[in-house]
Amino acid sequence: MKKLMSIASLAALAAAPPLSAQDTAKPKMLSPGQIVDQAAPEEWQAIAASDLLIMKLQPDAKGKERQIIIQLMPPPFSQGWVRNIRKLAKANWWDGTRIVRVQDNYVVQWGDPAQEESQRKPLPDGLEVMAEEDYIQQITSEDPPDTIVWSSGSYGVDNYSDMGLFENGWPLASSIGVNDTKTRSHWPVHCYGTVGVGRSLTPDTGSGAELYTVIGHAPRHLDRNIAVVGRIIEGMHHLSSLPRGFGPLGFYETPEEQVPIQSIRLASELPAAEQPRFEYLSTEGESFAKYANRRANREPPFFIKPAGGADICNIPVPVRRVKEAD
Amino acid sequence: MKKLMSIASLAALAAAPPLSAQDTAKPKMLSPGQIVDQAAPEEWQAIAASDLLIMKLQPDAKGKERQIIIQLMPPPFSQGWVRNIRKLAKANWWDGTRIVRVQDNYVVQWGDPAQEESQRKPLPDGLEVMAEEDYIQQITSEDPPDTIVWSSGSYGVDNYSDMGLFENGWPLASSIGVNDTKTRSHWPVHCYGTVGVGRSLTPDTGSGAELYTVIGHAPRHLDRNIAVVGRIIEGMHHLSSLPRGFGPLGFYETPEEQVPIQSIRLASELPAAEQPRFEYLSTEGESFAKYANRRANREPPFFIKPAGGADICNIPVPVRRVKEAD
Repeated sequence: MKKLMSIASLAALAAAPPLSAQDTAKPKMLSPGQIVDQAAPEEWQAIAASDLLIMKLQPDAKGKERQIIIQLMPPPFSQGWVRNIRKLAKANWWDGTRIVRVQDNYVVQWGDPAQEESQRKPLPDGLEVMAEEDYIQQITSEDPPDTIVWSSGSYGVDNYSDMGLFENGWPLASSIGVNDTKTRSHWPVHCYGTVGVGRSLTPDTGSGAELYTVIGHAPRHLDRNIAVVGRIIEGMHHLSSLPRGFGPLGFYETPEEQVPIQSIRLASELPAAEQPRFEYLSTEGESFAKYANRRANREPPFFIKPAGGADICNIPVPVRRVKEAD
Repeated sequence: MKKLMSIASLAALAAAPPLSAQDTAKPKMLSPGQIVDQAAPEEWQAIAASDLLIMKLQPDAKGKERQIIIQLMPPPFSQGWVRNIRKLAKANWWDGTRIVRVQDNYVVQWGDPAQEESQRKPLPDGLEVMAEEDYIQQITSEDPPDTIVWSSGSYGVDNYSDMGLFENGWPLASSIGVNDTKTRSHWPVHCYGTVGVGRSLTPDTGSGAELYTVIGHAPRHLDRNIAVVGRIIEGMHHLSSLPRGFGPLGFYETPEEQVPIQSIRLASELPAAEQPRFEYLSTEGESFAKYANRRANREPPFFIKPAGGADICNIPVPVRRVKEAD
């Protein structure tokens, strides 16, 4: 089996400060990554194969495979687009499409490279058309659920909502209704690695065929304006390290710069033995609470001033590949 | 003259949402980038040549030049390290050193690739040794200066301090003293493209010879723990698109992966005609206030839900290359 880094490992590394290469002393307290590594097995939640997309780019210049795994957004958010994306994958629609845009500190975007409408690849029948209210992605509840173990109220604040929180493995923003203080809206947020749906000017124009992922600082202003449909959970570096485009908005200027997509498949469409398996650390468990708290309060001896708070996008939810039985 | 994108252009692009390639309709309100483009000439502040570092990597696989420009941090912050960096540049110390670490969603780091102390390149004489109090980078004033046109108090909040603000062209965090409410500390913050000083476990170990820049979501927990000494103002893509390293902490595992640095020079050491010239948009002017406000409240018709706030690292200070006279 190929060695690939899990998001859990990335989270552990991200916790580590820049060190001199020769410095190998160990901190005394558990790091955020160590807390994750010590979580009880029952705190890990399996991700359904129907929520995993396997994206293969054309091999790189050295002939190395480039595979990216996307976890699709679970209910109640963005499900119209998610259903479209499953249809597009089952129709092999992305095969032969391309990465068309790489804008530094913003997004990598892929889909049909055709500039003119008449040349665009036909979409499968039966795709759902979404509207403005679907972008708002509103669900209502009188109070935040009592299962929440981390919210920005405890350890920080959120510039883009009343409160940031984690639920069912995803970072969400939450605000009390403007006209109705008994209702509350939740919506998924744009962080590094988030996958969203490209669209034109009107809210009904994004089908899910054009997708992007965030490769820079969280563009939270896109929240509630563009549908969040998933996140990259493995192989992010194949996208984030692509050469940047220098046309307007970071689009590649020539077809030669575009990166061909070999295929995007739902894991559930593969034979069971070939399905990759992933799990995420429950965001309702004790270990996640400790992990989030430690990311807000880094350990000595390296850290001399723990921050005491953290941005919701600086607390990536740990996701890992389930090891195959030996 | 080679066509290179300015940070001002990048800011304008970053303001634009992911669009379908064929969509060219124009919004009616001024975008953040348009506000910057229309700023009066006197709102632009020249950056001193002694505050500009020119970093040249070995040309890429296709033989293309790779040049990165770093703006050094002005007083009162981090000046001991900045003086060291000027000394290192004048001694041509970085010539032949390497990029040794590229950790996805975190940092690119460069310096002496030697693993063993005995093999490390000698540092120039007379480098200053910094201590814990220098990392805190504290200045005091009873109140925030009345020249501040944007602070997180007006348009948002800051998870890592009492208040985020901009002063003299830089994003800063600010907190009231714990024991003395009449004093206030300011410190520079880690955003995308920020340049900082790598160090070992104790605060006195970073000279400025090992540097890194941020290539992901703002790692604000490093603020006050590592010295911020500058930011990338041109050529960021040459660093952010490098292949990731897969050793611990994202260090490259083999010397072949490391990227040789040809040279790092102070612009002020070059003949006047060869000195690149840059300027930044005054953060105390009317245009910056409008720009920051517009980044917090994106324009219709694309945006259906303006955020009403913005993270300090989502308001990059516009910096541009001064055009040469025709």
